[in-house]
Amino acid sequence: MRTAPGHMHRNERQPAILVGVDIGGTNTMVGVMDAAGTVLRQSAFPTNPSLGSSAFVERLAQEIISLLPEAGDATTLSAIGLACPAVNAREGIVDNPANLGWGRVDLAGLVRQHFDVPIALLNDGDAAAFGELTFGVARGLHNVVMLTLGTGLGGGIVVNGELVRGSNGTGGEIGHIIVVPGGRLCNCGRRGCAETYISATGVCRTAAELLGIQTIDSALRDLSFREMTAAAIFELAAKGDPLARMTYDQTGESLGTLLANLAAVFDPDAFVLYGGLVHAGDLLLSPTIRAFRSNVLDRYRNTVKILVSDLNDGRAPILGAGIFAHRSVAAGQHHTTSVFQGGTHE
Amino acid sequence: MRTAPGHMHRNERQPAILVGVDIGGTNTMVGVMDAAGTVLRQSAFPTNPSLGSSAFVERLAQEIISLLPEAGDATTLSAIGLACPAVNAREGIVDNPANLGWGRVDLAGLVRQHFDVPIALLNDGDAAAFGELTFGVARGLHNVVMLTLGTGLGGGIVVNGELVRGSNGTGGEIGHIIVVPGGRLCNCGRRGCAETYISATGVCRTAAELLGIQTIDSALRDLSFREMTAAAIFELAAKGDPLARMTYDQTGESLGTLLANLAAVFDPDAFVLYGGLVHAGDLLLSPTIRAFRSNVLDRYRNTVKILVSDLNDGRAPILGAGIFAHRSVAAGQHHTTSVFQGGTHE
Repeated sequence: MRTAPGHMHRNERQPAILVGVDIGGTNTMVGVMDAAGTVLRQSAFPTNPSLGSSAFVERLAQEIISLLPEAGDATTLSAIGLACPAVNAREGIVDNPANLGWGRVDLAGLVRQHFDVPIALLNDGDAAAFGELTFGVARGLHNVVMLTLGTGLGGGIVVNGELVRGSNGTGGEIGHIIVVPGGRLCNCGRRGCAETYISATGVCRTAAELLGIQTIDSALRDLSFREMTAAAIFELAAKGDPLARMTYDQTGESLGTLLANLAAVFDPDAFVLYGGLVHAGDLLLSPTIRAFRSNVLDRYRNTVKILVSDLNDGRAPILGAGIFAHRSVAAGQHHTTSVFQGGTHE
Repeated sequence: MRTAPGHMHRNERQPAILVGVDIGGTNTMVGVMDAAGTVLRQSAFPTNPSLGSSAFVERLAQEIISLLPEAGDATTLSAIGLACPAVNAREGIVDNPANLGWGRVDLAGLVRQHFDVPIALLNDGDAAAFGELTFGVARGLHNVVMLTLGTGLGGGIVVNGELVRGSNGTGGEIGHIIVVPGGRLCNCGRRGCAETYISATGVCRTAAELLGIQTIDSALRDLSFREMTAAAIFELAAKGDPLARMTYDQTGESLGTLLANLAAVFDPDAFVLYGGLVHAGDLLLSPTIRAFRSNVLDRYRNTVKILVSDLNDGRAPILGAGIFAHRSVAAGQHHTTSVFQGGTHE
């Protein structure tokens, strides 16, 4: 791809240094990594989406430079992978991400103004799935449904060893399956989307609803809605607060029912759960598994695995975005869908 | 695969004669076809699933022999494809089909006792999708969700040009997505499955519920539940019976909402609707499209096509099963997933 002699010389002597970026509604994670999946340096900064996409990219560029080895020498860099919600992979743009409010943005183009290297853009759920299948608990599997439980609910789906991208490259939006017709208003403008229930913000909304529906006492009655976080509600639940526990029970029930429906459609080897909300552990997973078993078709009850990612600290989408960029360069294009090196699968 | 000189000689002189079979909960359709997709002869007989799978296969064998050219000469036959609900493609068996009640059956093995040719078994929804993508309205598309609206609701999903089979080969069961938690009891033992609403039996169940909920007069009030059929309710709706119309409105609303959710997950080029219920035409399609548009993510509202199959008289799964068998023989195996000849795709 890059034919300048100096560049070729460099590539022969040095291993590829990659950057993987995961742009979330709240925070953006940046990692510098090698192609073997070792994260060399990593940091995070607040996304502040309301400042706009240009201001965001300026901030991102600073962050990447500060993380690069050799005092910010960007010539050591071989590719950047950007994981973002609502990526239209066919057009290579970010298209109206509900939690960022940026409209249609050529995010890779903006980043390219700062770094003269190939930039690959992919959906955040897809990035997490790529990371998990390459370096995580889903290594070697060919049919996987990954759910990223953060501010929103993202999805990355692998069928026959390939990502489900769809006609416009915007497939896999598990968070926008309507699970309660006429239910909670979603940032996408519709009602009852899964991410309004099964996400960090969904946990807070469930807690607020339960404060209204139930009469039981709870420390949550002392918090304003703005003060609530999924982490704070988890802390209370872990201490035995009954309304906080009920909140996680309901969240798990919604998640388990969703997984049961996805099992009927995908017959996956495994589900992989990823993201901040999964740190709630058994408080979330026990009701999830209970609801999954009572709602899934008999034949999947004891066969489909529900795995929790062990790529902590945001590493699944970072590693996935970085390795996706690396493979896109190797394949000479930016629309790789195969999860497996070389693009072959059974 | 077949190396006896006589056979090879025959294959060189005669075009391949294939049989495609579609086993439904009510009727079984049998077609004799060539590899170019021309149905030469076709017939149907009642499945009578309660007589058991062995009695069914005896009846099926008679039917196939009676349809073969040259006075039942089975030596002209090159392969048989069997489309059936609840096929476990990995094990090559039919696994507890809800509408047949046969338990686990090696259906291909039973048919092979009658015909010494390769027998391929595949899910009925997959067969319909194969037929539609090879010979029907979905020709040339790579991301398609097919719904077969018959006694039950089947699905055949194509992603990146390949069928979604899943880990056990039982994926694509769109009819068993739970669309109403705690809703109607399904033959699978669970509640609220899509096929209890969006199918011929679902139409009758909706009519019965509406007779209880509404007070409006209707000719449906003169029919016992056992006398009701989706076709009879359609006839009344077409004549303006308000409760019959309401029944199809609700069915379309359920269908359109389901399609909206599937769009978020698959971002398909098109949906293809197939099966007896689709003959209701605009009485079903108008409320379907309305519900789809009001429930789908903005970006898909005007881009995803909702196509109605033009392979009438049961030909989509017959052609799909026959051509699947043909390609499985050509590929030297019985687990082909690629919809495209030669197994290549973009």
